[in-house]
Amino acid sequence: MPAKNLSFVLQKPNHVSFEDRPVPELHSPHHVLVNVKYTGICGSDVHYWTHGAIGHFVVKAPMVLGHESSGIIAAVGDKVTTLKVGDRVCLEPGIPCRMCVRCKEGKYNLCPDMAFAATPPFDGTLAKYYSLPEDFCYKLADGTSLEEGAVMEPLSVAVHVVRQAGIKPGDRLVVFGAGPVGLLCCAVAKAYGASKVVSVDINEERLAFAKKYAATHTVVSRKESAEEAAKRINEECGLGLGADAIIDASGAEPCIQTALHAIRIGGTYVQAGMGKPDINFPIMALCTKELNVKGSFRYGAGDYATAVDLLATGRVSVKELITGKVKFRDAEHAFHQVKEAKGIKTLIEGPEDEQVNGS
Amino acid sequence: MPAKNLSFVLQKPNHVSFEDRPVPELHSPHHVLVNVKYTGICGSDVHYWTHGAIGHFVVKAPMVLGHESSGIIAAVGDKVTTLKVGDRVCLEPGIPCRMCVRCKEGKYNLCPDMAFAATPPFDGTLAKYYSLPEDFCYKLADGTSLEEGAVMEPLSVAVHVVRQAGIKPGDRLVVFGAGPVGLLCCAVAKAYGASKVVSVDINEERLAFAKKYAATHTVVSRKESAEEAAKRINEECGLGLGADAIIDASGAEPCIQTALHAIRIGGTYVQAGMGKPDINFPIMALCTKELNVKGSFRYGAGDYATAVDLLATGRVSVKELITGKVKFRDAEHAFHQVKEAKGIKTLIEGPEDEQVNGS
Amino acid sequence: MPAKNLSFVLQKPNHVSFEDRPVPELHSPHHVLVNVKYTGICGSDVHYWTHGAIGHFVVKAPMVLGHESSGIIAAVGDKVTTLKVGDRVCLEPGIPCRMCVRCKEGKYNLCPDMAFAATPPFDGTLAKYYSLPEDFCYKLADGTSLEEGAVMEPLSVAVHVVRQAGIKPGDRLVVFGAGPVGLLCCAVAKAYGASKVVSVDINEERLAFAKKYAATHTVVSRKESAEEAAKRINEECGLGLGADAIIDASGAEPCIQTALHAIRIGGTYVQAGMGKPDINFPIMALCTKELNVKGSFRYGAGDYATAVDLLATGRVSVKELITGKVKFRDAEHAFHQVKEAKGIKTLIEGPEDEQVNGS
Amino acid sequence: MPAKNLSFVLQKPNHVSFEDRPVPELHSPHHVLVNVKYTGICGSDVHYWTHGAIGHFVVKAPMVLGHESSGIIAAVGDKVTTLKVGDRVCLEPGIPCRMCVRCKEGKYNLCPDMAFAATPPFDGTLAKYYSLPEDFCYKLADGTSLEEGAVMEPLSVAVHVVRQAGIKPGDRLVVFGAGPVGLLCCAVAKAYGASKVVSVDINEERLAFAKKYAATHTVVSRKESAEEAAKRINEECGLGLGADAIIDASGAEPCIQTALHAIRIGGTYVQAGMGKPDINFPIMALCTKELNVKGSFRYGAGDYATAVDLLATGRVSVKELITGKVKFRDAEHAFHQVKEAKGIKTLIEGPEDEQVNGS
Repeated sequence: MPAKNLSFVLQKPNHVSFEDRPVPELHSPHHVLVNVKYTGICGSDVHYWTHGAIGHFVVKAPMVLGHESSGIIAAVGDKVTTLKVGDRVCLEPGIPCRMCVRCKEGKYNLCPDMAFAATPPFDGTLAKYYSLPEDFCYKLADGTSLEEGAVMEPLSVAVHVVRQAGIKPGDRLVVFGAGPVGLLCCAVAKAYGASKVVSVDINEERLAFAKKYAATHTVVSRKESAEEAAKRINEECGLGLGADAIIDASGAEPCIQTALHAIRIGGTYVQAGMGKPDINFPIMALCTKELNVKGSFRYGAGDYATAVDLLATGRVSVKELITGKVKFRDAEHAFHQVKEAKGIKTLIEGPEDEQVNGS
Repeated sequence: MPAKNLSFVLQKPNHVSFEDRPVPELHSPHHVLVNVKYTGICGSDVHYWTHGAIGHFVVKAPMVLGHESSGIIAAVGDKVTTLKVGDRVCLEPGIPCRMCVRCKEGKYNLCPDMAFAATPPFDGTLAKYYSLPEDFCYKLADGTSLEEGAVMEPLSVAVHVVRQAGIKPGDRLVVFGAGPVGLLCCAVAKAYGASKVVSVDINEERLAFAKKYAATHTVVSRKESAEEAAKRINEECGLGLGADAIIDASGAEPCIQTALHAIRIGGTYVQAGMGKPDINFPIMALCTKELNVKGSFRYGAGDYATAVDLLATGRVSVKELITGKVKFRDAEHAFHQVKEAKGIKTLIEGPEDEQVNGS
Repeated sequence: MPAKNLSFVLQKPNHVSFEDRPVPELHSPHHVLVNVKYTGICGSDVHYWTHGAIGHFVVKAPMVLGHESSGIIAAVGDKVTTLKVGDRVCLEPGIPCRMCVRCKEGKYNLCPDMAFAATPPFDGTLAKYYSLPEDFCYKLADGTSLEEGAVMEPLSVAVHVVRQAGIKPGDRLVVFGAGPVGLLCCAVAKAYGASKVVSVDINEERLAFAKKYAATHTVVSRKESAEEAAKRINEECGLGLGADAIIDASGAEPCIQTALHAIRIGGTYVQAGMGKPDINFPIMALCTKELNVKGSFRYGAGDYATAVDLLATGRVSVKELITGKVKFRDAEHAFHQVKEAKGIKTLIEGPEDEQVNGS
Repeated sequence: MPAKNLSFVLQKPNHVSFEDRPVPELHSPHHVLVNVKYTGICGSDVHYWTHGAIGHFVVKAPMVLGHESSGIIAAVGDKVTTLKVGDRVCLEPGIPCRMCVRCKEGKYNLCPDMAFAATPPFDGTLAKYYSLPEDFCYKLADGTSLEEGAVMEPLSVAVHVVRQAGIKPGDRLVVFGAGPVGLLCCAVAKAYGASKVVSVDINEERLAFAKKYAATHTVVSRKESAEEAAKRINEECGLGLGADAIIDASGAEPCIQTALHAIRIGGTYVQAGMGKPDINFPIMALCTKELNVKGSFRYGAGDYATAVDLLATGRVSVKELITGKVKFRDAEHAFHQVKEAKGIKTLIEGPEDEQVNGS
C-alpha cells in the first residue's frame, strides 16, 4: 500500500492548498484504490472554489476538490472480482446508500444519502489516490485513453440527459447551450439516432465548434421574445410544428421560455443546466401541449456503462473537447479556465510519482 | 329521422338564444344520432359565454354551447355495429383526425385537427340532437343513470389526469383545488389505489365535502411561503420526504409553487387546471429532485371506457356531485351557477319533446 | 442478546429435526434481529423437504427451512433508523448483492447473487431468531396481525405477478389455478382495478372459495382442446375477443396452452407457477396476436411495501386464507398439509419462550 | 385519370395471370393514386402463390399479389395536403379501421379489421396503379432511390422488431436467421446502438454476407442441444451471462429453444419469424429468468417514418440487399427466386407505360 496522497484541497472560498493526506483505506472488501491520472473541472467545482457552497451544500471543513477522473487500479479488496491492479478505469464519483426506496427501484442518482465526491462533506478525486467500490469503477476499452476517461463523467451526464429526453432514431432535437454538457448532449443524441440536432447559443464560435462536432444545425440567440425565438428556430431548422425534444443545458431563463414554445405538442423537455432557482415559466404551454418536462440529475443505472460503450464503439468522440492539460501543481489554473470559459475541457494531470516521494 | 333540433346558442359574449336548427346528418355510415338528455357545464363553457373566446379560440359565428352530455341513441348509420336505437350513452365530445402522427401513436387528444364540441368553430351538445361517430359514444352500464352519464366527461378528465400522474396502489397524492375536477381526481386516484389522498383548498366547506367524498386528508391553504406551505402539508399529512405525486386542479400560482416543493425526489406533478399563461416557477426543484412535470389535456385512448367502468363497478361515485338540475329553457341559469361557484354540478335537461313539436 | 435459537432443520430429504443453533449475529450495523412469530409453508418448501433440491439448487448440508415469516424486532444494529425493538414486522427473505447491474437498475429480484432464505446454502426463517438488513424488514400496520404478516410473502408474490401483468382499472383478467398464489393474484388484481377476474381450476370447492374471496367469475376446467377451452371461457365470462391479461398460477401445460388462445390481441400473459421445464407452446398465437409473455420471479422493488399497504388499507384481505395453525414442534404437520393440498395456509407458530429456556 | 391498370393476379395456387383491371378510385378525399414502380416479394407472397392460403386467410377469388412497393404519385384527392403528383413514395400496405380500441391506443398493426394488401380478400400492389390514404404513403428522401423504396416494407418490419426488442446503445443482441428480415434486424439494431450484433444461421454464405453487411459476430448453427448451442454462442461471442435481447427471424424450433437459453436474466426475446404453430418451449427459462417474450406483427405507428429516416440519414443501407430486378411480365420469376432462396431481394419493375397502352 502506498503511503502518501498528495491532494488539492479547498480551504475556504478562493483559497486552495496542496496537502499530503493519508492514502484512503478500502472501506469494504469490494473497494478498490485508484491512482488518479486525469481530472476535469466543471462549473460546480468552480462554484465551490469561488463561493464555498452550492445551495444548501456548504463547505464547512477543508475538502478535496474534483470529481471527473480516470486512473489506474493500485489495490483491490479481497472480494473484488471485476478489476485487478493495473486496470485503466474511470470513476463514477457518487456512492448511494443502496438501501433506500430510490436505490432499490433503480434510481440511485436520487438517493438522499448519496456520498458524492467534492460535495461537502465528502472529499473529491483531485488527489494521488481515491478509493471507491468496484461497481462504481469502469474499465476503459483498449482504444480509450486515460485522458478520454476523464471526460466520461460529463459524457455520463449527457447520456442521462438524453435518456431522460427519450431520444430515438428519427427524433428532431434542440439543445440550448453549447458548453461541454450541451455539446456532449448533441453527440450522444446523434448516437441515439436523432436525425436533427440543433445547437443554440449566443456564442458563434461555440456554434461553429458544435456544427463541426455534432450538431446538424445551429442557431444564434438574439434579443427577441420567446415566441419569436421559438418560431425562428423552428423555421430556420425545418422543425415544422416543433421539436420532438428540447434539452436546456444553459440554465438561462430566456432559453427555457423559448424551449417551451419551440417544442411540439406532446414533446419532452429536459432541464440539464441550472441557473436561477425560480424563473418565469410558460405553464400554459405545458398544459395545452401536454408536455413532459423533466429534470436530469447526475447519472444513474447504466449511464456510465453506456458512456464507456459509446466511446469504445466510436459512436461518440470526446478527444475534440480536451483543449488543454495542466500539471497537478497548476490545478488552480484549470479552475480559472472554466471560470473564464476558455477552451472546453482542461484536464489536470494526477500528481507525479516523485512529487509524492519527495514531498 | 326527427325534424327539429332546439339548440342553445351563444350569439356573442353574454348573449345566448334558443334556435331551432336542422337535425344533424350522419356524416358517415359509422355515425349515430343522439337525443341529448343531460348536459353539465364547466368553467370553459362559462368562459366562452362571458368572453366569447379562450386564448386563440374565438367565437366568430353563433355556436351551440355544451360538451358534457348523455343521451339516447335516436338513429344509427349503416355500418354501426356497437350501438342501436334506444341505447343509453355518454358522449366523448372531441373527434380527432385519425390520420396524424399523434392520432396514430395513441395520443388522439393531442391531434391538432381535433373537432371539439363547443370549441369554435364546432357546435356543442346543448341541443335536442347531436351526431358523432359510434366509437366516441359509450353505452352506460345498467346501473348508471343518464344524470351520472353527463358527469362522465369531467370524470374522464380526472381519469386522464390520474393516468398522467401514474398513480398506483400505495401512492401518496396531494390534489390542489377541490372543485369538480379536483374532487374527481381524488376519487379516481383512490380507485387507482392511492393510499393517501390529500385535498388542499382555501374553501373549508369544499374541503369538508372532499373529506366525506374521497380525500383521506385535507389541508386549508393559508398565506405563507411556498416552502412553508409545502412543509406544513407534508407534516400535517405524514408525507415524510414528500408526496409521490401532486395534481394541481387549481391553476393558482401559489399552489403550483407549493406543489413543486411538497413533492418527493423523483415524484410526478400534473398540471390539470389552467390559470395565468406564465407563472413564477421553482425550476431548481425540477432539476435537483429530477421531477416529472406533465400537462394533462382533455382525455384520450381508454379514458372514457375507464370512466364508464369505474362507475359501473362502483369504484367511483358521482351522484354526490350533482347538486342541481334545470330545464333546458333555464340553461343559462346553470352557467350562472358555475360562474358563481354555487353547488358542484348543475345539469341541464335536454329539450322536452313537446318543446320541439310545439316550437 | 438472546442465547438460544431453536430451529427446524432439514437434514436430508424427508428427514427434519429441531436444533438449538446459535442466535445469528447482526452482520452489519444495518441488520436487525427478528424473533420469528409465524411462518407459512409453500410448495417449494415442501419440494426441498421431499426431494432435497429444486432444479440445480441442492441441499448439501443441513438447512433451516421456511421463508414466509413475521415476527418482532429483538435487536437492532447501530445504524438502524427505521425500526426499533418491539416493532411487529414481516420479513422479505431474499437479500440481493446490491452491486450488480440488475440490482442497480431496480430489478434486485433478478440478482444472480441473491441470498434467499431456505434456498441452499442459505438457512431459512423457521427458527426462534432470524437476522436481516432493516430495509428487508417491513413494519406491519396497527390493524395487521402477525398471522396476516406471515402471509405477506405470498401476497408480495401476487403483487409482483399482477404488476408484471400490468393490470389497471377496467382490465379483464383470467387466473389459472386457485391455490394460494392464484387466489391472491385474484385479490390483488381487483385492488389494482380489474373489473373482471375469472378464476379457472379443476377443483370446484376451490372455485367456490375463489368466488367468495375475490373472483368475479369462475370456470371449471374440462377435458377439451386448448382452443375449445379458450372459446368456452371467453363465452361464459363475456370476454369478447379475449382477456386483456392472463396469469397462470397452475404450471399445468393445458392451462398455459388455453391461456395463449384465450388472450386478446396485444394482451399480456404472466407465468406465475412452475411445472414441467419444457411444454408444447402455441407460438403462432404469440406472433399473430403480438402478445407479451412474461415470467414472474419472486418480488422486487416496492412489492412488499405495496403488500403491506394493501392490507393496511383493507384493499386486500388475507385472513380467509389462514386455515390452520400448528405449534413449532408440530411444524412438519404444516408440510404434510401443503403436500396433501389440505386447507389454504397453515401457519407454524414460532418457538415458545419456554421451549428455548428449557431445551 | 389513367384508364388501364395492368395487374399480376393469383387465380388459384400456382396459377397467375396478367389482367387489365380498372384503375382504383380514390375512396376518400384523403386518398392518393400511386403509379407503382418497384415491388419486392417475401415468403408470405410465395406462400399464397403456392398454397393459396396462410392459416385462415384463404384466397377465394382472384387476388392481385404484392405488398412491398414504391412508386410515384399519379393523382391526389381533394383534401390531400402532404403529397402532390410526381412525389416519389413508398407504400405502407395495410390500412386499419382507425376506430377500434387497438387503433386508438396506438397499436393499429393489431387492428382486427385491417385491410392488408395481398391478404385475402384485399388486392395487392403488383399493378400499374394502387390507391391508399395519404397518411400511409411516405415521401422518399432525395437520396433514396425508388428501388430502395421498395425495400422500405421489410425495413419497417425490422424497425418494429427492434423496437419490440427495446434495443438501446450498448445492448448485445443475437439474431437467429440471416434472411432479409434477419439481416435488416441486424442493421436496424446497430442503428439503435447495439454494440454487439450476433447473426446465427446454418448457411455460411449468408453469414459471410451478414458479417459484411451489419453483424459484429456470426455463429454457424450445428447439431447440438439447445443448452449446448446457447453456451457455445455466448462463449464464442463474449456474451457473458447471456444476450440482452434475442430476435428469432428463422421460425425454427431449435433456434427458439436455443434463444431462450442464450438470453440473460431479465432479457427480451422477440419472435419475428413464423414456422410451426406449436413448438416445444423451455418455459422454465421464462420463469426463472423473468424473461420478456414478445411477438412482432407487421409494423405500426412510426415504423415506416423511422425506416424512411434511417435510409435518409444513412444509418441503414439496403442497396446491398437488392440482388436482382425483373420486368413486370417476368414477375413470377421473382416468386421462384424467393421460393428457392436465391439472392436476397429480387425486385419486380412496375408495368411499363406502353404495356398498358398497348394491352
